[in-house]
Amino acid sequence: MTREDCLAFDATDPLAGHRALFDIPDGVIYLDGNSLGVLPKAVPVRLAAVVVEEWGQGLVRSWNTAGWIDLPARVGSKIAPLIGAQSDEVVACDSTSVNLFKLAAGALTMQPDRRVIVTEPGNFPSDLYILQGLADLMPGLEVRVVPRAQLIEALDETVALLLLTQVHYKTGEIHDMAALTAKAHRVGALTLWDLSHSAGAIPVDLNGSDADFAAGCGYKYLNGGPGAPAFTFVARRHQKAFRSPLTGWMGHAQPFAFDDDYQPAAGMARLLCGTPQVLGMVALDAALAVFADVDMAMIRTKSIALGDLFLRLVTARCADLIPACPLDGEKRGSQVALRHPHGYAIMQALIERGVIGDFRAPDILRFGFTPLYLGYADVWDAVDRLAQVMETEVWRESRYAAVSAVT
Amino acid sequence: MTREDCLAFDATDPLAGHRALFDIPDGVIYLDGNSLGVLPKAVPVRLAAVVVEEWGQGLVRSWNTAGWIDLPARVGSKIAPLIGAQSDEVVACDSTSVNLFKLAAGALTMQPDRRVIVTEPGNFPSDLYILQGLADLMPGLEVRVVPRAQLIEALDETVALLLLTQVHYKTGEIHDMAALTAKAHRVGALTLWDLSHSAGAIPVDLNGSDADFAAGCGYKYLNGGPGAPAFTFVARRHQKAFRSPLTGWMGHAQPFAFDDDYQPAAGMARLLCGTPQVLGMVALDAALAVFADVDMAMIRTKSIALGDLFLRLVTARCADLIPACPLDGEKRGSQVALRHPHGYAIMQALIERGVIGDFRAPDILRFGFTPLYLGYADVWDAVDRLAQVMETEVWRESRYAAVSAVT
Repeated sequence: MTREDCLAFDATDPLAGHRALFDIPDGVIYLDGNSLGVLPKAVPVRLAAVVVEEWGQGLVRSWNTAGWIDLPARVGSKIAPLIGAQSDEVVACDSTSVNLFKLAAGALTMQPDRRVIVTEPGNFPSDLYILQGLADLMPGLEVRVVPRAQLIEALDETVALLLLTQVHYKTGEIHDMAALTAKAHRVGALTLWDLSHSAGAIPVDLNGSDADFAAGCGYKYLNGGPGAPAFTFVARRHQKAFRSPLTGWMGHAQPFAFDDDYQPAAGMARLLCGTPQVLGMVALDAALAVFADVDMAMIRTKSIALGDLFLRLVTARCADLIPACPLDGEKRGSQVALRHPHGYAIMQALIERGVIGDFRAPDILRFGFTPLYLGYADVWDAVDRLAQVMETEVWRESRYAAVSAVT
Repeated sequence: MTREDCLAFDATDPLAGHRALFDIPDGVIYLDGNSLGVLPKAVPVRLAAVVVEEWGQGLVRSWNTAGWIDLPARVGSKIAPLIGAQSDEVVACDSTSVNLFKLAAGALTMQPDRRVIVTEPGNFPSDLYILQGLADLMPGLEVRVVPRAQLIEALDETVALLLLTQVHYKTGEIHDMAALTAKAHRVGALTLWDLSHSAGAIPVDLNGSDADFAAGCGYKYLNGGPGAPAFTFVARRHQKAFRSPLTGWMGHAQPFAFDDDYQPAAGMARLLCGTPQVLGMVALDAALAVFADVDMAMIRTKSIALGDLFLRLVTARCADLIPACPLDGEKRGSQVALRHPHGYAIMQALIERGVIGDFRAPDILRFGFTPLYLGYADVWDAVDRLAQVMETEVWRESRYAAVSAVT
């Protein structure tokens, strides 16, 4: 496999034209779209118009005239087809963590005789923390943390809810959503899926899997910008019974009646809490346009090819970096994990050379592959620079070992 | 009082120069800064730079290099002096409703032997709804809704928390924060103040009043833009004991250690939940610059003068509009309420004539006075147009009676 082979793949790639929809810095190979997606070119124009025209000139009238009030439903309906949901089953609002709280607490109120939530160790920390906070609030609630291999057998008649992240944030392993949901339903449990590393990355089929609840992130593969609003899904069959614990005014049946008593809105609107964060919402709305004319199967095919190519080149050229993700592309999300005891310093040295991935404690170098703005030659070049970092051992320089606040 | 008198006041107004810091549409007199503040000119420039440079070019690195990760604390520290708090007592995050939930639930965990929260009827609906949702989650919790005149006597040894909005969203009446807090403390209760209609509008002295908790809105008098992040305050003496029920990863002591177990961060960081909404946060950050060189006492003096002038002119020229707010400026927030059975249609007719206020069910016309961008002649002109609407009874035209989704 040569760089020329990769250029040949790029020349026939049906998704290659989508790169022009994004602003990517010169000289950067960006393998961190699983942390923060790159800037879609449509966003700055739209955001400036919203600020200067809709806010500046329209002022408070824009809640109606510019449709701000409908943004949570409108953005949700654009995310829905990416995750196998109906357009009236998804709204965009709040953060992923806040939505996980709503959904877990709401699911428990639908299961009054059960007080066990099953999840797995090493799940994304916020998922675990949110359950721990909920348990502090609801005496008697047990958060049962079960290793991945024992999840199926752990689902029994005591379980109210199974909460899992479909694609593991660190290793990229994919849970079998349909099989786990089916087993959960057989014992009367409900399921809540964190799609933060799935939405926009792999085909997700919530309704085909009969899933009950889901939430996910707007700023990774959906490219909504730093801290973009999250999204939340409640299957249509549960919407009438579902009660959010965060009963803010935007979830009221008639928010502008200013009644003293809470009455939940119909449908997904009852998942809303406070006033929608309009600026973040319109950025996400504009960003979603890049998905308008592609289907997730096409993205998935290229995503697996990019990941496989990366792993093949790394195996050939960087023997010290040990894969910590499934080697079978079908079992891996749109990301690759490599292990090295000096992973942090290696990643810093690589970033300095224009290849941006990230590090996840204690020893994982993480690389995301976003088929809409990455090509095969990008992958070849990224491994080339990674091989240089490993061969020269430049990462041993002390300046790369400094602890960073965030990546 | 003539228009010329008003122009003379404007000519000597020490705050008149601040109007140049805002973009106000030509021909509009904006009396709705208590719903959505106008656009500070600093915002579009800053937001564009954040989108194009920090997100577009810096990408994920900007969490460190552009200080995104510090935005909740940095923005909080700019709000702190406006509300009588120390800079390490305030963070910006989430919505007001979500923050009220955190604070009320957290306060209850500090009062394990008490299960009564006192509030008042007609409080802003989200405040009431959030307590109702919390009560559904915590069996045994009683939300005691007590008329304003009986609040002091309702505070007894059963009460865990008093939750009030300092300035009433509709009538503008101001609670005596110091007196109510003192009484609450005498019986061992804690206090939570909603400052949505106070912050940036009137001088607030949380620490001088010995208040325990507070939250408020970023998009009204703070001009942070539609759906701006809210802010939250926990008095320094309570920060160590305070536990948020929304234990997202950004409130963890070491979010990037990716531990399975939640450990609260020190100080106000434990109030954070999900990833900060960067775009909304930088807009609010840029907007707060208009407060850099004014003190709240100066704003308050002009605010009372504008409100008094408005009421005096309305009384003289619009006899059918009955004041529904305190006539004594010292007892009134930076807003005026007028009552009329056809208030909705009157407000629509007035808005069409370029004077923007809002309507609050069932019969209140609401006008906000924002001294940083309104002058005395604006008030004169606003009442002039209102008087025309009333004299011609143009509001009786059926098109003004249509029900609007939002104002």
